Amino acid sequence: MENRQIRVGIIGATGYAGSEIVRLLLGHPQAQIIWYGSRSYIDQKFASVYGNFFKLVEDVCRDDRLEELAKEADVIFTATPQGFLAGVLTEDLLRQVKIVDLSADFRLKDVSVYEAWYKIEHKSPEFLPEAVYGLCEINRGQITPDTRLVANPGCYTTCSILTAYPLVREGLIDPNTLIVDAKSGTSGAGRGAKVPNLFCEVNESIKAYGVATHRHTPEIEEQPTYAAGREVTINFTPHLVPMNRGILVTAYASLVPGPEGKLPSYEEIRAAYEKYYGKEFFIRLLDRGVCPETRFVEGSNFVDIGFVIDERTKRVILMGALDNLVKGAAGQAVQNMNLLFGLPENTGLCMPPVFP
Amino acid sequence: MENRQIRVGIIGATGYAGSEIVRLLLGHPQAQIIWYGSRSYIDQKFASVYGNFFKLVEDVCRDDRLEELAKEADVIFTATPQGFLAGVLTEDLLRQVKIVDLSADFRLKDVSVYEAWYKIEHKSPEFLPEAVYGLCEINRGQITPDTRLVANPGCYTTCSILTAYPLVREGLIDPNTLIVDAKSGTSGAGRGAKVPNLFCEVNESIKAYGVATHRHTPEIEEQPTYAAGREVTINFTPHLVPMNRGILVTAYASLVPGPEGKLPSYEEIRAAYEKYYGKEFFIRLLDRGVCPETRFVEGSNFVDIGFVIDERTKRVILMGALDNLVKGAAGQAVQNMNLLFGLPENTGLCMPPVFP
Amino acid sequence: MENRQIRVGIIGATGYAGSEIVRLLLGHPQAQIIWYGSRSYIDQKFASVYGNFFKLVEDVCRDDRLEELAKEADVIFTATPQGFLAGVLTEDLLRQVKIVDLSADFRLKDVSVYEAWYKIEHKSPEFLPEAVYGLCEINRGQITPDTRLVANPGCYTTCSILTAYPLVREGLIDPNTLIVDAKSGTSGAGRGAKVPNLFCEVNESIKAYGVATHRHTPEIEEQPTYAAGREVTINFTPHLVPMNRGILVTAYASLVPGPEGKLPSYEEIRAAYEKYYGKEFFIRLLDRGVCPETRFVEGSNFVDIGFVIDERTKRVILMGALDNLVKGAAGQAVQNMNLLFGLPENTGLCMPPVFP
Amino acid sequence: MENRQIRVGIIGATGYAGSEIVRLLLGHPQAQIIWYGSRSYIDQKFASVYGNFFKLVEDVCRDDRLEELAKEADVIFTATPQGFLAGVLTEDLLRQVKIVDLSADFRLKDVSVYEAWYKIEHKSPEFLPEAVYGLCEINRGQITPDTRLVANPGCYTTCSILTAYPLVREGLIDPNTLIVDAKSGTSGAGRGAKVPNLFCEVNESIKAYGVATHRHTPEIEEQPTYAAGREVTINFTPHLVPMNRGILVTAYASLVPGPEGKLPSYEEIRAAYEKYYGKEFFIRLLDRGVCPETRFVEGSNFVDIGFVIDERTKRVILMGALDNLVKGAAGQAVQNMNLLFGLPENTGLCMPPVFP
Repeated sequence: MENRQIRVGIIGATGYAGSEIVRLLLGHPQAQIIWYGSRSYIDQKFASVYGNFFKLVEDVCRDDRLEELAKEADVIFTATPQGFLAGVLTEDLLRQVKIVDLSADFRLKDVSVYEAWYKIEHKSPEFLPEAVYGLCEINRGQITPDTRLVANPGCYTTCSILTAYPLVREGLIDPNTLIVDAKSGTSGAGRGAKVPNLFCEVNESIKAYGVATHRHTPEIEEQPTYAAGREVTINFTPHLVPMNRGILVTAYASLVPGPEGKLPSYEEIRAAYEKYYGKEFFIRLLDRGVCPETRFVEGSNFVDIGFVIDERTKRVILMGALDNLVKGAAGQAVQNMNLLFGLPENTGLCMPPVFP
Repeated sequence: MENRQIRVGIIGATGYAGSEIVRLLLGHPQAQIIWYGSRSYIDQKFASVYGNFFKLVEDVCRDDRLEELAKEADVIFTATPQGFLAGVLTEDLLRQVKIVDLSADFRLKDVSVYEAWYKIEHKSPEFLPEAVYGLCEINRGQITPDTRLVANPGCYTTCSILTAYPLVREGLIDPNTLIVDAKSGTSGAGRGAKVPNLFCEVNESIKAYGVATHRHTPEIEEQPTYAAGREVTINFTPHLVPMNRGILVTAYASLVPGPEGKLPSYEEIRAAYEKYYGKEFFIRLLDRGVCPETRFVEGSNFVDIGFVIDERTKRVILMGALDNLVKGAAGQAVQNMNLLFGLPENTGLCMPPVFP
Repeated sequence: MENRQIRVGIIGATGYAGSEIVRLLLGHPQAQIIWYGSRSYIDQKFASVYGNFFKLVEDVCRDDRLEELAKEADVIFTATPQGFLAGVLTEDLLRQVKIVDLSADFRLKDVSVYEAWYKIEHKSPEFLPEAVYGLCEINRGQITPDTRLVANPGCYTTCSILTAYPLVREGLIDPNTLIVDAKSGTSGAGRGAKVPNLFCEVNESIKAYGVATHRHTPEIEEQPTYAAGREVTINFTPHLVPMNRGILVTAYASLVPGPEGKLPSYEEIRAAYEKYYGKEFFIRLLDRGVCPETRFVEGSNFVDIGFVIDERTKRVILMGALDNLVKGAAGQAVQNMNLLFGLPENTGLCMPPVFP
Repeated sequence: MENRQIRVGIIGATGYAGSEIVRLLLGHPQAQIIWYGSRSYIDQKFASVYGNFFKLVEDVCRDDRLEELAKEADVIFTATPQGFLAGVLTEDLLRQVKIVDLSADFRLKDVSVYEAWYKIEHKSPEFLPEAVYGLCEINRGQITPDTRLVANPGCYTTCSILTAYPLVREGLIDPNTLIVDAKSGTSGAGRGAKVPNLFCEVNESIKAYGVATHRHTPEIEEQPTYAAGREVTINFTPHLVPMNRGILVTAYASLVPGPEGKLPSYEEIRAAYEKYYGKEFFIRLLDRGVCPETRFVEGSNFVDIGFVIDERTKRVILMGALDNLVKGAAGQAVQNMNLLFGLPENTGLCMPPVFP
């Protein structure tokens, strides 16, 4: 413990994403958790809320006094509901501590888009320009030891954008034909006690939800919009799958023919992926003919990507898989922390996926 | 038992679809199973292979001597691998007994399409013109006591076509923009002992498979092609979901604007569905804002359909759910049998879905 | 509908047991549901709470005015929390309507045992002597058209008692060595929104709960006490299994040696089961070497029973399986209703188990 | 990689236990896998068989030439079917390389017991005296750098023995009253393609199997026999649970009264556990009233233990949970390897459990 230099506070430590940050940081050689914030379980032992940490974490949960925490910590993870951080953030806080926010508060640059999709007023839009969108593989250059505020991307968003980005950027697909059909494990719905998330309601069933209205939609559109250099509007449909973890994105887009009307070949599309991801540790471009499966990324920070060209319809089917709690939340947050503190990006994140 | 008039033989009774025919016919007031055919379990008690039928079925499994069976039965269900029925069908058989085939052998009118997608030679294409495609809600008129051979539609196909048909037929969507993203429970993969279908391989995971190559694709295209009056090419991507039963189809299509460029309204689309399905017993058009969930059709012959218009992308998202073993296989087969023998179509098929 | 003679009211219709009564009665030729009682969903359509009944049930939920309901109904099912019926039951009610109570209020004859295990005061112990314990296979003689109040047994209890009863009654096992290790699907925990019943908490896990303190314990002891003619004390440990439905009981007991110290043989034990259950429609005594599996009773009112003698330890291992929502709750309630109205006991309850 | 000193060969690397050794060793600072043995997948990339290792393992599978491997490796893990190692083991091999055997071949000291329960001849009983039973927490003293052959305990055995050992050893329970009711996730059944292990057969069901005949029984009896100083005969009943990983043992035993007939108290039983496990890293004795749940040990090498005294029946209910692939197989094997090479016992095994 003596060498651990980064003091970490977690606000919302007893949600699934918060507890996953705990799991990852327990194996991180440079980080030390000093604050387990949880409004619902104040003064209770954290390990009594998450029995997996019995004997590994002795701390009790504390409330969310950010001012006090800011003095003790080097970085704070806010794994909190939308609106929390925007409601309490101040310049004074950011002068003392870095913040990685796992909520949507600082993901969208346009406050009106945020307010339209999330139906709440944004209480501190003045920090939006400063906030960096923490999709490391794309925005790595902006996440530096000088950065104070990172907006950690959503789980669906991370999977969707990473799956489609190179093809949009290289102009190989028409971004406005992009249709993202996403499937998520149930931990994405959080640990709130709600009837629709009960075992018997989720088990042995699949359904779409938030059709044409899910809040990750504008976030998914924002990066392709930058990449394409023009406004991109897509379809995004999330589905609830009877499994704990994992997101699979199946995306469809029309291929853009070349000068002589020829569609991009397998090799050209693969080359686009290699160009952007060839050196990425966490992105695994699968071999030809292999489709991503969520079981093969579970527990890890990897994103598996594959694609198939359909000559008949002149579309390409893109597929990406990740663990929604790791690369889709806690793992990416730690990845951002590593960048913020100048550590190798995969520090503490090299664990292989757990299967079966 | 004395009043039961229809003598039924089942070839392939020990597959999941075959055993589901057994379950349904045990509750059918007019049918009596006289032959449990199963090459793998000859002379074994059927109830030793499917313990749920213990004390309910005393018969042993018999082999697939169709000639002998044809003399004893009024109708034969063939729940067999592709190629079986095509390989043994004769005019002599059809003179003696009606056949409802649950394989793909007689679903596609164009033998070359069959051979291209299934990679096997069709041994009796001469019966293709006579075979009726048994999608009752659409082809009911052709399924009569005079019909001898019914090609029972595939599970993905039934769900996909029924979900999209009225909108294609009414010209409300552009059929060539249709993208069908389907999710199926694992019973659709059959009872064969294969590693990819083991519990630990399927559980806690989701994946796409057969991307751009799944054999149900041409079958899904055939009916919309008739409905649209021109050749329709679509994308169809099946996914494997960790649940026993159920298919959910999420389909995307561009809406066709009216004369002044106005998109079809919710009411217009709903009216199209009502026009074709308003009186259908087995199709439940859900209330506005309700999305189908497979848990609500499990064990029943219902198809639940819902849709959402996305004004931003000018597309409509169509959703349909059914139980792949019932409406997607055995239930529809019994529905066809009812039509073949002049019974009310829902005879023996009125059981409510089982939830949870 | 015109011939349906039994008018049924359900209090607590939106719990899992209540909704299962609905499912069963929709297929019952002599029953008609006239009242869907549900405090939580008053004035909402029942089918909006349980989507599986869409288009099958048009009624809205009503509150629990028993006096009003008693005038309209022939029988009331109370699928309510402990204490509800005991708190409202009156002689006046019982003069007008029969009641089948699915709670524990009238299961235990000794009010002090009830109050000790359930930690609530019993508000109407005066009806305890009249209440009949509705374990049909054992108490059938007491459930007649004259009976006014039936205490429907608990799910664990039904499975445990039926599995062990003949051997206790015949003196083949020492009842005080009985250890009942039970495993239940999650629907047994009800539809209340509680964190421990969330999908991600139940899935991929198994645990014991209520160890040595579960409230079904005295109920399980009561019938063996009568059967043995002396007070029986047992161990009962329930476990939560990641599946929707089903209870499996694995019970252990020391065999009582015969006069010359010889242990009972397989044939003797089997004969004991045959003696009590040989003609029972709903009890299936499995073939030698076959162990019950919950999948083979799902959706049905069957109880599957098997046993193995362990010569090494001189114990017998008894196993019983049922569907906790059917034979463990709603199915047995309907079975009791059939007896109360002089109908064949399996009326509306002949559906085969659904597998897979 | 350069500092890795222990060269490891795995025979049977493509079974679930073998692949879990791979996962653990990828995170082990002192081990390097040099041989992925797999008869079924020779020359195929290991990562094509277990997609979770894509980009992490580049090696191809090799056959099981032990002589060749013995020259290259420091230790061999044999995760193979019963009989394999006994059939090929030689003094020559053991002179060159240490072996940790995950099969049952060298677990039982009495070859006749082995042959009676496993129904195969033991081909090399001459090594039985030398083999050390690798239940580290109990036999740690015998597992040293001089040890050549370790018999890695079975999954059920590890859980059962560790749960009951201190109470047997301290004479607090009567060992011959011990009844072990065990529940296992499906990975324990291996990756063989068999109908009973298909998703649809396991899902939504629970069953007992191998009742009174399971091969782990004599292994579970052996350690208590040593601990009690007299022959112990127990009941052991395994159950198959629809989840991937985890074993839960619920064990029942009669408490031994003290001199004045007083039963052992909670504190006395707890003290017995503390005496043997108080300093054990991998055994977590839960707080009073907390029952083990498999979800809280998943992916880790921990064993969680709890107990409840039932004053009514004078029995104690013991409960233990572990991950069958980790502490029940691969994790314990690595723990043994650490002991064999003089490393801290938890090297590479400190990862927290993964939940949800």
